[in-house]
Amino acid sequence: MDNNFKLTIEYDGTNYHGWQRQVNERTIQKEIEKAIEKMTREKIILTASGRTDAGVHAIGQVANFKSNTRIGAQDLQNGLNSILPNDIVIHKCEAVDQNFHARYDAKSKRYRYTIINRARPNAIGRQYVWWIKSPLNIEAMREAILLILGEHDFKAFEGAGSPRSHTVRHIHQATLEPDGTGKLRIEIEANGFLRFMVRNIVGTLAMVGAGKLAADDIALILNSKDRKYAGATCPAQGLCLMQVHY
Amino acid sequence: MDNNFKLTIEYDGTNYHGWQRQVNERTIQKEIEKAIEKMTREKIILTASGRTDAGVHAIGQVANFKSNTRIGAQDLQNGLNSILPNDIVIHKCEAVDQNFHARYDAKSKRYRYTIINRARPNAIGRQYVWWIKSPLNIEAMREAILLILGEHDFKAFEGAGSPRSHTVRHIHQATLEPDGTGKLRIEIEANGFLRFMVRNIVGTLAMVGAGKLAADDIALILNSKDRKYAGATCPAQGLCLMQVHY
Repeated sequence: MDNNFKLTIEYDGTNYHGWQRQVNERTIQKEIEKAIEKMTREKIILTASGRTDAGVHAIGQVANFKSNTRIGAQDLQNGLNSILPNDIVIHKCEAVDQNFHARYDAKSKRYRYTIINRARPNAIGRQYVWWIKSPLNIEAMREAILLILGEHDFKAFEGAGSPRSHTVRHIHQATLEPDGTGKLRIEIEANGFLRFMVRNIVGTLAMVGAGKLAADDIALILNSKDRKYAGATCPAQGLCLMQVHY
Repeated sequence: MDNNFKLTIEYDGTNYHGWQRQVNERTIQKEIEKAIEKMTREKIILTASGRTDAGVHAIGQVANFKSNTRIGAQDLQNGLNSILPNDIVIHKCEAVDQNFHARYDAKSKRYRYTIINRARPNAIGRQYVWWIKSPLNIEAMREAILLILGEHDFKAFEGAGSPRSHTVRHIHQATLEPDGTGKLRIEIEANGFLRFMVRNIVGTLAMVGAGKLAADDIALILNSKDRKYAGATCPAQGLCLMQVHY
């Protein structure tokens, strides 16, 4: 294949069964592959920095594919945006080095999780937040989130049924801030994530916020390396893949 | 009827044919009336501060209805929120004076219109903005919006086919600001609005931003009292009824 194209992609995951191609389900990967194949008339394989689960969104997902097409990167981008449904937008399309691999070359990723904490849910934008009714202790959650910074074995925060040999990850940044519109924004950047890791961390932070766990219980949970001590996996729709660094 | 209940309502208008009850269409009014009737077992009529058009949203729509129910305001609110689909949320339910009328008593209303102005649209939250691709001249739009402040005959900005005897309205506030997330937020507060008035004003401001009209053409358009000089009605989905003052 002559060309290697790198795409930077935003999507609203509400109406998809996640990133990964599945036979009978509508997925982001399938939708974009279909659009590329329509333009290039080739069978291609789109490789993402990582899959996102059903209902999860992305503002800066990155994927690449190889192709012999003579269509240039700019025309590809314009064409794809006109073919794709409006809940998927290609923000960049670049011709990159043959060796570039969206998954293997990713150095770190940043996820955002958004919580709305008030008596009643929102109607507008409800697809992008997790509504928590009872008041959260933000200070305790802030204290707790600091404990995940650095290199740890995140086995206790890994989704059940997806064991990997290597569960140590390095969290470079972890913040919890009001977003200025009444919502709470949790951002986590790491060199990699285990399955459900962000949603399990946020589910655990929510328990700290609700007073069901103490802030420093996070350290005990990490050390336990046992999924049963961490909080429940929180809902997919609050999660968004913000950026992938190479 | 013993009670008069005032509701403050948020809704995502994406999947509705506007506020007003229509025989074969899904509308906000019909949805809420159905929920109230389910709770009170009475036939009721819900009166809003004004109708919103298909696809328009609200954060602070106000409506009232009379009822003989013995259910208290708080229980009504909780019950309605559990019955209603999650794109409609009742933020307040208050027992008010028998004379309160959501439409006649409204002193002013505030609308927000949101534009996203960049090379590519957004996927996340696309239901709540108008995407304009070509760069807008924000300064010219700001100059223009000042010219609608105060009392004017807004006949030129009234939707075709909806003539009213009285087309003079008083605009108390009109601002155009970046919203801090890359979007442009236009807010207009007036003692009343003609049909499509906000969307026709925003459509005209967009022409100013695009350099197709000069900022002070707004004054000429107002004076013309002729719809054909104003810009096209801009899309519904960028519009949101923020607040009704009584």
